[in-house]
Amino acid sequence: MTKVAILGATGYTALELIKLLLRHPGTEITALTSREETAPVNRVHPSLTGRISLPMENLSVKEIASRAECVFSCLPHTASATVIPELLENGVKVVDFSADYRLDSPEVFKKWYEAEHPDANRLGKVPYGLPELFRKSIIPAKLVANPGCYPTTAILPLTPLLREKLIEPSDIILDSKSGVSGGGRKPKLNYHYPECNESITTYKIGKHRHLPEINQYLSLAAGKPLEVIFTPHLTPMDRGILTTAYAKPTRTLTQSEILEVLQNFYENEPFVQVVEHLPGTKEVAFTNKCHVTARIVGERVMTISVIDNLIKGASGSAVQNFNLMFGYEETLALL
Amino acid sequence: MTKVAILGATGYTALELIKLLLRHPGTEITALTSREETAPVNRVHPSLTGRISLPMENLSVKEIASRAECVFSCLPHTASATVIPELLENGVKVVDFSADYRLDSPEVFKKWYEAEHPDANRLGKVPYGLPELFRKSIIPAKLVANPGCYPTTAILPLTPLLREKLIEPSDIILDSKSGVSGGGRKPKLNYHYPECNESITTYKIGKHRHLPEINQYLSLAAGKPLEVIFTPHLTPMDRGILTTAYAKPTRTLTQSEILEVLQNFYENEPFVQVVEHLPGTKEVAFTNKCHVTARIVGERVMTISVIDNLIKGASGSAVQNFNLMFGYEETLALL
Amino acid sequence: MTKVAILGATGYTALELIKLLLRHPGTEITALTSREETAPVNRVHPSLTGRISLPMENLSVKEIASRAECVFSCLPHTASATVIPELLENGVKVVDFSADYRLDSPEVFKKWYEAEHPDANRLGKVPYGLPELFRKSIIPAKLVANPGCYPTTAILPLTPLLREKLIEPSDIILDSKSGVSGGGRKPKLNYHYPECNESITTYKIGKHRHLPEINQYLSLAAGKPLEVIFTPHLTPMDRGILTTAYAKPTRTLTQSEILEVLQNFYENEPFVQVVEHLPGTKEVAFTNKCHVTARIVGERVMTISVIDNLIKGASGSAVQNFNLMFGYEETLALL
Amino acid sequence: MTKVAILGATGYTALELIKLLLRHPGTEITALTSREETAPVNRVHPSLTGRISLPMENLSVKEIASRAECVFSCLPHTASATVIPELLENGVKVVDFSADYRLDSPEVFKKWYEAEHPDANRLGKVPYGLPELFRKSIIPAKLVANPGCYPTTAILPLTPLLREKLIEPSDIILDSKSGVSGGGRKPKLNYHYPECNESITTYKIGKHRHLPEINQYLSLAAGKPLEVIFTPHLTPMDRGILTTAYAKPTRTLTQSEILEVLQNFYENEPFVQVVEHLPGTKEVAFTNKCHVTARIVGERVMTISVIDNLIKGASGSAVQNFNLMFGYEETLALL
Repeated sequence: MTKVAILGATGYTALELIKLLLRHPGTEITALTSREETAPVNRVHPSLTGRISLPMENLSVKEIASRAECVFSCLPHTASATVIPELLENGVKVVDFSADYRLDSPEVFKKWYEAEHPDANRLGKVPYGLPELFRKSIIPAKLVANPGCYPTTAILPLTPLLREKLIEPSDIILDSKSGVSGGGRKPKLNYHYPECNESITTYKIGKHRHLPEINQYLSLAAGKPLEVIFTPHLTPMDRGILTTAYAKPTRTLTQSEILEVLQNFYENEPFVQVVEHLPGTKEVAFTNKCHVTARIVGERVMTISVIDNLIKGASGSAVQNFNLMFGYEETLALL
Repeated sequence: MTKVAILGATGYTALELIKLLLRHPGTEITALTSREETAPVNRVHPSLTGRISLPMENLSVKEIASRAECVFSCLPHTASATVIPELLENGVKVVDFSADYRLDSPEVFKKWYEAEHPDANRLGKVPYGLPELFRKSIIPAKLVANPGCYPTTAILPLTPLLREKLIEPSDIILDSKSGVSGGGRKPKLNYHYPECNESITTYKIGKHRHLPEINQYLSLAAGKPLEVIFTPHLTPMDRGILTTAYAKPTRTLTQSEILEVLQNFYENEPFVQVVEHLPGTKEVAFTNKCHVTARIVGERVMTISVIDNLIKGASGSAVQNFNLMFGYEETLALL
Repeated sequence: MTKVAILGATGYTALELIKLLLRHPGTEITALTSREETAPVNRVHPSLTGRISLPMENLSVKEIASRAECVFSCLPHTASATVIPELLENGVKVVDFSADYRLDSPEVFKKWYEAEHPDANRLGKVPYGLPELFRKSIIPAKLVANPGCYPTTAILPLTPLLREKLIEPSDIILDSKSGVSGGGRKPKLNYHYPECNESITTYKIGKHRHLPEINQYLSLAAGKPLEVIFTPHLTPMDRGILTTAYAKPTRTLTQSEILEVLQNFYENEPFVQVVEHLPGTKEVAFTNKCHVTARIVGERVMTISVIDNLIKGASGSAVQNFNLMFGYEETLALL
Repeated sequence: MTKVAILGATGYTALELIKLLLRHPGTEITALTSREETAPVNRVHPSLTGRISLPMENLSVKEIASRAECVFSCLPHTASATVIPELLENGVKVVDFSADYRLDSPEVFKKWYEAEHPDANRLGKVPYGLPELFRKSIIPAKLVANPGCYPTTAILPLTPLLREKLIEPSDIILDSKSGVSGGGRKPKLNYHYPECNESITTYKIGKHRHLPEINQYLSLAAGKPLEVIFTPHLTPMDRGILTTAYAKPTRTLTQSEILEVLQNFYENEPFVQVVEHLPGTKEVAFTNKCHVTARIVGERVMTISVIDNLIKGASGSAVQNFNLMFGYEETLALL
């Protein structure tokens, strides 16, 4: 029985995480922290009524470390990297939902997050929590950087094609559509129901903080630096991301060739399904799955990938990483 | 050409009002006020781009009075009744969207709105802006109290039945379902997209501020004091209210008898349609219509009524009242 | 390992059932039938990709009986009762999703379903699959009549109040709001997205087939025949039912008294939560929970209850019944 | 007073057209045809209750010609071109909503619509009903080919840039997102509420019938043949199309340069607004507007354009064309 704590438990990713962990036979949730709320967690999240009775607490790092072997940090960027070093020193393993340990370079971090990194020395040494690509580094890790939701939809379909040199690293376009839960639980005009319902819109074109993360991991796959064009869209639905990617093939390719490469790459992966049909976000909603397909159109290779942004794009991945780090069956609580 | 000003122009009712007035051949919008915003109105409401170029302004009452013959006040309760007396003194006519002049009794106002009424002497002398029932008083009025959205859906179907003594005044139940725009434009957790999307919920049972308004006007129709049970529901859609009302017949009635009474009552009304089918809110969305039907079920008379809460429930009614007060065709800009 | 078959596997309740059973450690799905489809089930339901690889098959009763110890019948009414007798004769236990065995009287069945009952002799002897009320009869049963979704939201909150004689059996009004999945998977104009999106509407007032079922089980609770008024509404959301019930108290009651009665009644029930807040459907979406609360308003007792129509209103209940019938932990696969 | 008839009046574009024409002071609707329905039109479209009382009729071309000076044909492709020649011979002017007269080449038509064109000789001589680009040809026309919804969102933003040689004709990618009403009023599984609600999906990649139309008119703008990549997405909302276009600049360009070119091009157009913010579909819903903006990202020019698919993408454009053909103010009934 692994004792786990969740930091920043008021948000949507924490809520999904709690639900997943309540199904996990090997874990016991021992602490839920919040700096604002002290109510029982099921008052904040009424869907947890009768399922868990912990309060939200404003706990010191020491107190957290005394209660948990594993911490899931759902704190905002920089806040996360402020507490994580002490947790690690106390022998606690950490899955970090923030962007704090995803980027290798403190300068890139500073540029995009407009803040000095509180724990810059550790950058570049923390495995990126996409088990399909980095399982070996995750298993022994003390700290894992859980991936961003958009990056997951970009890196999973494109990595095999870049590694196999089937597509050019240059001139990749990612047109992504996300549900509104991706914006978090804090009320803002953009996410006010009468504003975003019945409307689709682009936002933060060329400025979204997931862009450097995508560039870093696709560059790694390509073996050389690349920069994608990434256009996020806010879509009137709760959950889900669909990413339509456009890339240049390096040679003449057929659709079945591309699908086969993807199929072979993900053959043994329980959570990535290469499909022939055009997938919609609903078919992976509330699951830890990523469905991927590909098409050849004109002079472009297209990949289409869908995930649930809160599960495979956040809390499901986190549990997958946790399972690997603590020696559980990777799929536990996730099927 | 009537010069009109809109006070509190950042909200949804103001936006709908502006759109309606832009179609009105007899009006010119000369001022839009806001205490917070000073941006051009189309920056706040991008749907107005290219249609109107006024700025939001923080204007004194004197300045407003110098620019407008008619003021539509979309200010909150008590704020509205604070500026209206001075506007009236300056010869400006006013259509008030707030609840300030809807109730006859300052005590009832105080109980429900938890504030002293700033202009209590005027209560009871201001016509209620439901032209279908109070047209004669509206035509010569200097000030009209525009009705609440829920009350409109209750008063229109039940008034003819109460006046004709076909239903008992006691034991009326109103089960109402509203779209989210009824909650206004200010972001709150209740109206945060991932909270209210894909969910229906009751709220403020027995405590909603539209309750005394409904009671007052149904009592008037019944000729004696009555108190209804009123249950509002928040429904995952932008606009629309559907009210299902349950009342006791005073004698054995048939469905066609009830429909005929309603039909006769509203025969010449351009905006109330008595229909045979079960109406949905969408069929009146973006219109100034109220569709009403009735059924006999068991020992109850049921009425079902639908409106667009922002049009017939707010800005459409306001324009209808304005047309009557200024001698325009009642339906101008509303068909 | 219990071998189970699902009849009529193309619909939404079958899909949810499959997902639940895939999480159930004690079952193996051995057959999925359809009279129209012969495709692999994950072609019909792409959300099952990689999770199950059975085909849809058009199987004889004999073949089904040879493959399964338990059959979940998602067939339409009368079709279900046509095959169930033979399944039972072959020693197969059955959970029936249709209405075929819910009513005690063949005459009432004929009146509401406009067909002769194919297995009339069995009526009145089949336990109704609401474990919270009929657990003792379900445990030894060979056949269980899985409840309708609307009835579940009516019977759970009102039964304790009727049994305790706290509310009058007469004059109960049920105003229910359901998501669109309740209408099934077959495309119809009513459920066409641009028709029902952004609209709420009543339907089948006084004519819905769940009405006799509600009447029968509330009469049982009251100890005498009663007839409710039941108004279903189609609500623009995928899942969920919220039922607002209005009943007359038999004596002066307080809200806390009512809540306490409900609380005591459901104290040990894992799937019924008596809550103090006003519950929304979203808080029970994708769970087997029913959240219930109560209010006193004017001279009425109100109960508000929410479920996921596809889980607690169909497939979750079915698995709960299955667990009881086969000696599994009642909550298995349902938490 | 111009007498107009609408052929194929059961669909959504016809409904929107009727609503627009009811606001048009210069038209009288004299016939509504349907081959299936003979009900009063407001029984099919309850939102028309009390606004129009015509029946649907199955009329001969001769009868139609005797009743109308202008026909709006909402018939399906090939059906439309089967009746239009006779209408023209009878001196009736026609605005055709189908694709029948949009393409210049009978071969291209046959390839994409899998049918011989019934009136092939007229192809290439019918003006394309985008007044912003082809106003001069529309004014004297007897027949106008009303544009497709997707093409409108592609051709309006890209034409100025192609004409000015600011972007390369090759390698244009159009990633488009449409609301569900674009799929028509006929129930199909794709458009069944529980299927498409809460889901976004691509469809008909590289195969959508609007592709040849886009290619033809962008080729015209470029002065040489081009082929775009076009990816339509089905988005969970009633109305609206957002098209995100990616093109290669021919030289180094700034965002303000691009915006200025667009601004100058559409300066006097009442229905195209070049905006600086990132537009969402909701801001043009229920209007005849197209909002357009542009961005430079990496080595790409992006344009983002939004319309209401049923208004500017269909019925609003049709009325705009009608106004031009019959000498009315172009904006009549459209503001």
